[in-house]
Amino acid sequence: MTICAISTAPGIGGIALVRVSGNDAFAICDKLFKSFSDKLSIPAMSANTVRFGEILNADGSVLDEVLVTVFHKPHSFTGENVVEIACHGSLFIQQEILKLLLQNGCRMARAGEFTQRAFLNGKMDLSQAEAVADLIASQSRASHRLAMNQMRGGFSHELLLLRDKLLNFTSLVELELDFSDHEDLEFANRTQLCALADEIEHKLKHLVDSFAMGNAIKNGIPVAIVGETNAGKSTLLNVLVGEEKAIVSDIHGTTRDVIEDTVNLYGVQFRFLDTAGLRPTDDTIENIGIERSLAVIEQAQIVLWLIDYSQEKTNLAWLSQQVVERSRGKQLILVFNKLDLLNDTQKSEVQESYKQIGDHRIFISAKQRHHIDELQELLYKSAQLPELSSNDVVVTSLRHYEALANAHAAIVRVKEGLNSKISGDFLAQDLRECLNHLGEITGQISTDEVLSTIFSKFCIGK
Amino acid sequence: MTICAISTAPGIGGIALVRVSGNDAFAICDKLFKSFSDKLSIPAMSANTVRFGEILNADGSVLDEVLVTVFHKPHSFTGENVVEIACHGSLFIQQEILKLLLQNGCRMARAGEFTQRAFLNGKMDLSQAEAVADLIASQSRASHRLAMNQMRGGFSHELLLLRDKLLNFTSLVELELDFSDHEDLEFANRTQLCALADEIEHKLKHLVDSFAMGNAIKNGIPVAIVGETNAGKSTLLNVLVGEEKAIVSDIHGTTRDVIEDTVNLYGVQFRFLDTAGLRPTDDTIENIGIERSLAVIEQAQIVLWLIDYSQEKTNLAWLSQQVVERSRGKQLILVFNKLDLLNDTQKSEVQESYKQIGDHRIFISAKQRHHIDELQELLYKSAQLPELSSNDVVVTSLRHYEALANAHAAIVRVKEGLNSKISGDFLAQDLRECLNHLGEITGQISTDEVLSTIFSKFCIGK
Repeated sequence: MTICAISTAPGIGGIALVRVSGNDAFAICDKLFKSFSDKLSIPAMSANTVRFGEILNADGSVLDEVLVTVFHKPHSFTGENVVEIACHGSLFIQQEILKLLLQNGCRMARAGEFTQRAFLNGKMDLSQAEAVADLIASQSRASHRLAMNQMRGGFSHELLLLRDKLLNFTSLVELELDFSDHEDLEFANRTQLCALADEIEHKLKHLVDSFAMGNAIKNGIPVAIVGETNAGKSTLLNVLVGEEKAIVSDIHGTTRDVIEDTVNLYGVQFRFLDTAGLRPTDDTIENIGIERSLAVIEQAQIVLWLIDYSQEKTNLAWLSQQVVERSRGKQLILVFNKLDLLNDTQKSEVQESYKQIGDHRIFISAKQRHHIDELQELLYKSAQLPELSSNDVVVTSLRHYEALANAHAAIVRVKEGLNSKISGDFLAQDLRECLNHLGEITGQISTDEVLSTIFSKFCIGK
Repeated sequence: MTICAISTAPGIGGIALVRVSGNDAFAICDKLFKSFSDKLSIPAMSANTVRFGEILNADGSVLDEVLVTVFHKPHSFTGENVVEIACHGSLFIQQEILKLLLQNGCRMARAGEFTQRAFLNGKMDLSQAEAVADLIASQSRASHRLAMNQMRGGFSHELLLLRDKLLNFTSLVELELDFSDHEDLEFANRTQLCALADEIEHKLKHLVDSFAMGNAIKNGIPVAIVGETNAGKSTLLNVLVGEEKAIVSDIHGTTRDVIEDTVNLYGVQFRFLDTAGLRPTDDTIENIGIERSLAVIEQAQIVLWLIDYSQEKTNLAWLSQQVVERSRGKQLILVFNKLDLLNDTQKSEVQESYKQIGDHRIFISAKQRHHIDELQELLYKSAQLPELSSNDVVVTSLRHYEALANAHAAIVRVKEGLNSKISGDFLAQDLRECLNHLGEITGQISTDEVLSTIFSKFCIGK
């Protein structure tokens, strides 16, 4: 069935793009379109060429003047015949062109259906297809880089090669089972299989471990800001978000909703987790709220503890206990705010009393914007990201992570089985399981349910 | 200077389009782009062809995989060399491609600058260029039709022809002035000039008169809904807007803001003007509010007077007086709501008491959705729109209306002058004035100020 959709962002723009893909794409579009320059029909247009012309309503009146581009299968995004109609970006025109296409035999594309067809037609593997959605959603240099690496093959090519080798061995092991009366028969060289299992296990371990970072980059490094209510948390957030907003505001359409409390530093996105102000109290209800605030620290990778040392310091000991305890295994940054209100004695005091606590200490003034640059550098440093090169292999998808972790568990069992010389049928079962989990990633093994879950996360028109 | 902008709607989409126009468009884009299929550079690409390839960052890493389309001057929208880059619609990628273009010598296009260049390069006249913005903003079939007619030449071609003829006569009249000692000398045939002035006056009158309708179609036919607070005004509006919303909701991105209280009926937009509930009162403050409600009627072309006849009717006489008086010259529709609550006696009463009042009477139940279709038909009928064909000549722009009205006034003075045989220099002055006003419409006579006012109303990227 030939499908159609608006592929550009929803709303009014100078130009909108209607994409049509399928066997009848040329014939259907030809019914609507009349070229200006010559009488050339769409089916007669050369591949990868553009024509200026008009879209006609059913009554023959002109709906719009458009550019039509033609792609021939299999050399198109979907691998099918594709027509792209660039029309004036009025909502009315976009809607009417879709209506005309539907009347002439198209149906509306589901979310991600163009990319799904690209996958089904072998234009890309499943992990590459998934990367298209990540690429479109990417908001920072780092998440963009990961998505781009994945779209261009990333780790899936390497996995494919390893899986092919493993498949080969698995077939041999399974063949041995057919000759089970001959106990000593070994088609699969156990030494080579061991080496391959080692290689695969090592590779999978590396990929599984990369997920924590990949996920952080994709969704933003989680940073908890904790502190007393008057410590200046909101001012600091406004300063950080404000400078970021200034950077992104030259792309129109960046909505505040999307970047709410996230800040892009040196190409990496940081996601700030709000917490209510902290203080020791006997009030049961208030304690529940404080407990909740402190629980946010658990989700964070970095903890910013904002301290107004110019105020009375009665709660500091209590706070210190609460925060430090929960920040174990995380990067804890002590931020002494209101630098301008601190005298030298206080500064030395701080240096002395807090030198045992946290990973970093910094003095700032959020209000005066003093040392904000240093704080940003400290945040970036605390994220402990390796330098990302174009060839980095990082897992960003929970689906991949789960498949990889399962494959890893299976290959570990294979290795153990080889060591303990378990029977061929158990070995074969673990090998098959590993193969299946690897196949899930690139799409050799996929169910309709998995596919529809993956592609439903796409936007319409992609 | 070569300019660039995002031409598609702002925000995240499957695909975004970056447009580059100017002398250096090919050379600049060539610095960023590497074709996949061959080593063909952008300057070497044939006109109207598309290439798949990648956009490279300054450090040589891949920013995105894109389609690049090339148009050669003068056969492009702007009349200049144009490159269109279709990239993945992430905000990050859109922003980065613009950055790369700026770094390589482009500057950001101002609002409407692509269309302005099309005008300056003679690809379209000024009124056609203005129609591009109207076309993009059009929300109904009727406003779309008018914008499309205007973009495709509309009345401006005809005006150009008439203006050329008038220019010819004006030159002859001005030539006579050089020979002013020869009083009887007449280069310009007065009979022919009279006939031409008649033709122009007739044409201009027709266009000036069409503005009321054109403006209504473009901005929506203004409909005042008046009545007592409990008459069911909001329910009726919800029903009308609700059905409309169901129609438009299959285009994503139609925001509630844009269609607030406007309803598209049979391809024509109706704009409902809210009024507060009416009742006679001695309260000075409340009377000011009621006066304001009644004043809304002045702005309307159609008045819907909603009456709940099932309630006590003490205020009806007073209301009738207020509403009928102010609806003179407008279409007044009496809408008896809550049809289901009316008994037969009441219905006959209504028929009898109101038969002298208003242009139409209709019984509905907004709540039960009874006779809403009939009300919609009645609204459409009351708008008294002529059937719009593809060749209709309708003025929709206030700027055109003013120029046409001024030109009309000048040509009327020319005609009077010819009748009273005024001296050649006065005649020439009126002729010049008429020529100038006509020239303003199509852009032969334009100032930078006028141009920047017109094009600043465009969106960026068009």
